[in-house]
Amino acid sequence: MSVTILESTSTILPPKEQLPGAVRSNFLHVAEALTPTLHEWTERPLGTVTFKLDSTAFFQCRAVPQHTVEELSKLAWGKGDEFTLDFGSHRVGYFSFHCGIQGANADAPARLRLTFGEIPFDVMEDIQPCKSWISTSWVPDETINVDWCPADVDMARRYSFRYIRVQVLDTSAKFKVTFQNIRVRAVSAIDPSAAMPSFRTQDAQLNRIDEVSIITLRDCMQTVFEDGPRRDRRLWLGDLRLQALTNYCTYRNFPLVRRCLYLFAAMPLENGAVPACVFEKPVAKGSSDYIVDYDALFGSVVYDYTRESGDLDTAHDLWDTILQSMKSILSYIDASGRFDSTLGEAWAFLDWKPELHKDAGMHGLAIFCCKAVNSFARLLDKPPPYEDVVSKMTAAALTFYSKEHSVFVSGPDAQVSWASNAWMALAGVLPAEQCKKALLATLVHPDAVKPLTPYLFHYFAEALAVSGAEVECLALMKDYWGGMVEAGADTFWECYDPNDARASPYGDCHNNSYCHAWSCTPSYLLRKVLKDYLVRSGQVA
Amino acid sequence: MSVTILESTSTILPPKEQLPGAVRSNFLHVAEALTPTLHEWTERPLGTVTFKLDSTAFFQCRAVPQHTVEELSKLAWGKGDEFTLDFGSHRVGYFSFHCGIQGANADAPARLRLTFGEIPFDVMEDIQPCKSWISTSWVPDETINVDWCPADVDMARRYSFRYIRVQVLDTSAKFKVTFQNIRVRAVSAIDPSAAMPSFRTQDAQLNRIDEVSIITLRDCMQTVFEDGPRRDRRLWLGDLRLQALTNYCTYRNFPLVRRCLYLFAAMPLENGAVPACVFEKPVAKGSSDYIVDYDALFGSVVYDYTRESGDLDTAHDLWDTILQSMKSILSYIDASGRFDSTLGEAWAFLDWKPELHKDAGMHGLAIFCCKAVNSFARLLDKPPPYEDVVSKMTAAALTFYSKEHSVFVSGPDAQVSWASNAWMALAGVLPAEQCKKALLATLVHPDAVKPLTPYLFHYFAEALAVSGAEVECLALMKDYWGGMVEAGADTFWECYDPNDARASPYGDCHNNSYCHAWSCTPSYLLRKVLKDYLVRSGQVA
Repeated sequence: MSVTILESTSTILPPKEQLPGAVRSNFLHVAEALTPTLHEWTERPLGTVTFKLDSTAFFQCRAVPQHTVEELSKLAWGKGDEFTLDFGSHRVGYFSFHCGIQGANADAPARLRLTFGEIPFDVMEDIQPCKSWISTSWVPDETINVDWCPADVDMARRYSFRYIRVQVLDTSAKFKVTFQNIRVRAVSAIDPSAAMPSFRTQDAQLNRIDEVSIITLRDCMQTVFEDGPRRDRRLWLGDLRLQALTNYCTYRNFPLVRRCLYLFAAMPLENGAVPACVFEKPVAKGSSDYIVDYDALFGSVVYDYTRESGDLDTAHDLWDTILQSMKSILSYIDASGRFDSTLGEAWAFLDWKPELHKDAGMHGLAIFCCKAVNSFARLLDKPPPYEDVVSKMTAAALTFYSKEHSVFVSGPDAQVSWASNAWMALAGVLPAEQCKKALLATLVHPDAVKPLTPYLFHYFAEALAVSGAEVECLALMKDYWGGMVEAGADTFWECYDPNDARASPYGDCHNNSYCHAWSCTPSYLLRKVLKDYLVRSGQVA
Repeated sequence: MSVTILESTSTILPPKEQLPGAVRSNFLHVAEALTPTLHEWTERPLGTVTFKLDSTAFFQCRAVPQHTVEELSKLAWGKGDEFTLDFGSHRVGYFSFHCGIQGANADAPARLRLTFGEIPFDVMEDIQPCKSWISTSWVPDETINVDWCPADVDMARRYSFRYIRVQVLDTSAKFKVTFQNIRVRAVSAIDPSAAMPSFRTQDAQLNRIDEVSIITLRDCMQTVFEDGPRRDRRLWLGDLRLQALTNYCTYRNFPLVRRCLYLFAAMPLENGAVPACVFEKPVAKGSSDYIVDYDALFGSVVYDYTRESGDLDTAHDLWDTILQSMKSILSYIDASGRFDSTLGEAWAFLDWKPELHKDAGMHGLAIFCCKAVNSFARLLDKPPPYEDVVSKMTAAALTFYSKEHSVFVSGPDAQVSWASNAWMALAGVLPAEQCKKALLATLVHPDAVKPLTPYLFHYFAEALAVSGAEVECLALMKDYWGGMVEAGADTFWECYDPNDARASPYGDCHNNSYCHAWSCTPSYLLRKVLKDYLVRSGQVA
């Protein structure tokens, strides 16, 4: 997730800021006590690379090995020289090197420009000026001055990268610089050598998709579940849900999920709702960003956590917050039991696609959330609070259904979209067979509004899987996440358009994040949602 | 001092690199034990300024106060905004501020560009790209990214400045930045509140020149006598001589001079000569730069120190180094007793002026150095080693004298220059009255090669003063150093051309140093060399 201000219209207008409420310091203390000590390990580059044009490649180029690290250590670089390091895969951490000299005396500072790239475009062309309309302060380039060479250089900021472009802006006529002991102190809440449940399909592409998902998740797991380690580097509720689900079938790190749940509960908005994201630094603070669907999903996130961890204490602690988190979305339900976005001004998200009409999708999501909280209540021996709501809304869901086209539609123009049909299926408003039919009809509908983000791709894929369309779910995964793998992804991206390697929701792909939490769900889909099907069909031992 | 490679020719070719000799670790230990703990004090800006065009001003502009620090603390700055801080005078130290925010959340880093200016040009126009052919790594601009605002920002590098241009490259749509607690932790080997010998003439301009000299010296006095705190930030022997002389009649800090003397003696070149400069960091190291006149002046620097401090132990310790330091210059004396630059390949400096013919000046300087060492020997009860040399060279000096024009000349074209006449006068090769006549004739000679640097301006001024031309010396000081004061100098500059505010020996004035050690001598001239005259003529009480 990342909040931007879209320049086009959507049916529910984006971010209306909300005032923060009082901090619940008892919850904050729990969250703070759960702050993990990050694992640290050293990774070194494979060597330097150059990029050759390759019109068959997604990024129209191909990395070609140039120097080994050993060779590089003996080369000297002067004004205007540059090279690009390749660390072999995605890393999150702190970059260090020894800056040596070749020449009589280092009689001036060495001025270097370092650009940290997640994809080739970041380092094979000038990343600045960046034309993005969100903050260009995220663009990962740094100019540093090393006063007294030779020197050990430890960069203070954390970066997210596979490649590093090193440009020598100047030394002096008396000396050139050399580079030794190049390394990154990689960090994660996850020990990279820790065991995880084994999983292996007979499809190499699916196995690679699983691997990339897991690295994506690892690199986003820091002192919170970050949306992306490059940008925005913070905890968003919608992203957390997908990360937590993937975590349960991979790393199974429960304390970090618990910490994040308490962070959200500790810093409600003035009206008691859960903020869309929270900041850890410089001090813990709820964001003024509010997203009604993220708020409503809070209960389901705690429910997932409780079922996976068995930790009932957290569930009881956060129960009041869960009930609060449902109030906003339910205020949009009209007398007939339909979600109506005109009843308020809060921002519903679902996906970044500007033209998406969101009422049907939000209707399904509201039912999904109510059902989750009802089930949660039963688990906790509490009365299910939304049984009547679910009944009424499930009946009203049919008013979004087009019998003619066998799909759910939204808005005055009866818009067909992946969002509407995914969430109605996940809500189970019709029998699975009918939901499957609606989803497959949506897939082939010529005017269906497709997702812009992996976030919605996930929910559509999950809807396929839970509606009996496992074959189509796998095909979608191989096409979409598999497409990123084919394009060279080491981690999954914030956004992916198979037809446009420069696609960006922000006006310039140099400000995209290419290791983004909401893209990490294939491992969850394969290892959990599709598991029975894969075993049944002999694709997994 | 600073070594550059001139593109034009001079009679003795610049820097021929020399191999380092064995480090004399006993001397190095003495130097290290004398490393001062720097004094630190806090300075705050007066406020912000803008620059208005003013065709009557040297820099064609005039600083106009804009916001007080109090007003500034309440203003918020977003993408593309900028302001310029004015600290009221020159500072050397570490810059800090509190970067606050105005807005809902700091959901992105703040990217700032900071440019540290010694003169208006540094901050009123873009300092990059710098067209200087010496290292542009010296250009004092930094781009920083502040990840978690609000934050206290402490810049790690030391800067030399009066103005700071602060450009907000980006924040985000959610917040702007504010600036509070802006300050510099100023540093010097000198306690700025320490008492010094009182001195006051009846001429306000001379008093101001004295003040500016003293601040120049203070800001260059760090863990060594630096040539300039902006660039090159290191110890050069020629600069040290002038700084030490000025120090003796102002701060009277003897340990720092002693430390510098031992640093030079500790790291001789392979042939035993004294290097032109030494590096302190990352480890103490003699430079490969060699300047034959700097080498020869070493004895005079130790002699000055010994007379002022009374420390005879140092003198005895360094005596062998002094004798070594004379060898190179004496190897250029031909059979007739004349300095002949064609007898070797070492670099003679005297001044940066490319067209200067240096034989006559070097001849005078050699005599000056021999005489100083002879006097020093007598002080130490040693036999004066160069009495015969002085006799022979003094006689031979007349072969450089043009009876027709009453000036010293150099080279096949009988070039008249300030350098030749200054050093012949300082060597005392003719009676003072005749030297005075030569100096005054040089001053008005239409083709005389004038100095490019304050270094040679100093020696010419001193030559005037010791030859009985005190009136002309004061006039020269008021014209030259007074011109810098009129132009707004808070500290004296590395170079000054009254007719060209953008003059630079380096191709771009943005790489000039405007607080430069070899310009600090007016306090020495006024307080020591001219003192008797000023008292005698009633200008000093």
